[in-house]
Amino acid sequence: MKKRIVIALGGNALGENLKEQMAAAQGTAKAIADLVEAGHEIVIVHGNGPQVGMIETAFETAARADPHFPVLPMSVCVALSQGYIGYDLQNTLRKELDFRHISIPVATIITQVEVDPADPAFLNPTKPIGGFMKEAEAEVLRSKGIPVMEDAGRGWRQVVASPKPVNIIEAETIRAILAAGQIPIAAGGGGIPVALQDGQYRGKSAVIDKDFSAAKLAELIGADMLIILTAVEKVAINFGKPDQKWLDALTVEEAKKHIADNQFAKGSMLPKVQAAISFVASDGGSPTEAAQRTALITLLQKARDGIEGKTGTVITRGC
Amino acid sequence: MKKRIVIALGGNALGENLKEQMAAAQGTAKAIADLVEAGHEIVIVHGNGPQVGMIETAFETAARADPHFPVLPMSVCVALSQGYIGYDLQNTLRKELDFRHISIPVATIITQVEVDPADPAFLNPTKPIGGFMKEAEAEVLRSKGIPVMEDAGRGWRQVVASPKPVNIIEAETIRAILAAGQIPIAAGGGGIPVALQDGQYRGKSAVIDKDFSAAKLAELIGADMLIILTAVEKVAINFGKPDQKWLDALTVEEAKKHIADNQFAKGSMLPKVQAAISFVASDGGSPTEAAQRTALITLLQKARDGIEGKTGTVITRGC
Repeated sequence: MKKRIVIALGGNALGENLKEQMAAAQGTAKAIADLVEAGHEIVIVHGNGPQVGMIETAFETAARADPHFPVLPMSVCVALSQGYIGYDLQNTLRKELDFRHISIPVATIITQVEVDPADPAFLNPTKPIGGFMKEAEAEVLRSKGIPVMEDAGRGWRQVVASPKPVNIIEAETIRAILAAGQIPIAAGGGGIPVALQDGQYRGKSAVIDKDFSAAKLAELIGADMLIILTAVEKVAINFGKPDQKWLDALTVEEAKKHIADNQFAKGSMLPKVQAAISFVASDGGSPTEAAQRTALITLLQKARDGIEGKTGTVITRGC
Repeated sequence: MKKRIVIALGGNALGENLKEQMAAAQGTAKAIADLVEAGHEIVIVHGNGPQVGMIETAFETAARADPHFPVLPMSVCVALSQGYIGYDLQNTLRKELDFRHISIPVATIITQVEVDPADPAFLNPTKPIGGFMKEAEAEVLRSKGIPVMEDAGRGWRQVVASPKPVNIIEAETIRAILAAGQIPIAAGGGGIPVALQDGQYRGKSAVIDKDFSAAKLAELIGADMLIILTAVEKVAINFGKPDQKWLDALTVEEAKKHIADNQFAKGSMLPKVQAAISFVASDGGSPTEAAQRTALITLLQKARDGIEGKTGTVITRGC
């Protein structure tokens, strides 16, 4: 059955630098083209952690070399990263679709995502961006008032606030592109974070979690399914322990119970399960539509099998 | 009468740096909102000279400081500039429309523009990008093989190839957004220059003239009018001489004669008149549509009056 699907691509689908990104985009394009070929309507959301960090670093370095050089606010860095990654994704996916003789246009929409300026996340930056550093380098940044954090044993990274999305400003344009049978790439890097102030959306210093933005977008465009791609085929409980158990399905209630039991790692599986819940439990559309919403957490290469119910972890509303 | 209009915004409408850009965008948004309020369908194309130069400089500086840092190809720099400028324009225009209680969405499409790899422009770079330099600084770049040129008495600048656009890859998405009654911002900075190679569009080291890309886009979406905004209210012949004459109207034939007589300055009014001709003389659509195409060259603030035939220079096909 043909579904309207929002796919959230993570770092694995994009690589850590330009060369890796171009190679990774090839594999990503093939996996997405499989879903297009199966007749699904697709919206692509992607992360931007390494890329937005790279852009910020380039401008900071230039500003140190020339005091007149502009230091770009984080919101503007996200806008640049949407152009950077979106160009590569739309180019590579178009090539893959052309190769299969599928004439479906694909294009990136520069997307602003509204956040609440009172979101407590602004008081506690937790979202890692940019490359990994040694502890000593991190201490230098910390001494300048730039928040840093140790990232899951992989090294130190700069961190920024990660507020929750409350609205997708360009949702109507994304709907129009879908209605025309085309493939939008939107809310890249979680979207450009903005908040309403004196009648205008103003950029905020933050990076929104792309899985949450994908969930909000899925809700606003009436998607049937949200696919959150990650580095494992399924969600597990007791992860890494002798009694580790891979999960085929979860109701919202079960997922919430596992969260309460601290089953999912912060900054890793936890936000993915939370984003899945936020879409599946969302209220928009008719009660029938709402009841049928599902989220799927799996590997990029398993997305097609996952949609067919063969693998991955499916999150549903339950009764 | 309601028209479908492509507007090409120049440097004056955007400013030379982030602060200037945000101020300039306010005035630009008001002038464009006037046209939207008058009932016209609008597509916005913008330049990116200062911005793409700034982005290239930032990455070059970072790469000098850290040899592992990626140097972005010019095509990728254009993609970043589309995100950078598009975000600001769509944000500011949305605010102006909201203020007038006009609920018409506006969004930027990351746009690739196809060029011919055999375009002779690749052998002779002429398009200035980035900030102005003193002659001595320019000589340093020239000695490294980076082309530079004196720009209309205002100083020295880096130059890149400026091939002609032959196709707008995302034209179908731009058409879909227009069909939904929305306002696309597209082909920013003249579009990301790409050429087909082994079945994939590959980035080319170039910056396409945004007036030519606007003309090509106007042709492909069946626009009634192309408005090329510039720093003067009308086109003149004998410009700056005692017998200077402002022109209210020009046929394609008259415009070509003035070009043959070297009436228009290279890198300034000449490409604007050439772009106007390329749209007005284009063949697409029905013969009636083709005959009615007009181009208008004027100031941003005079665009509304110009559409009503009160000012500016109108270029028509003639008989």
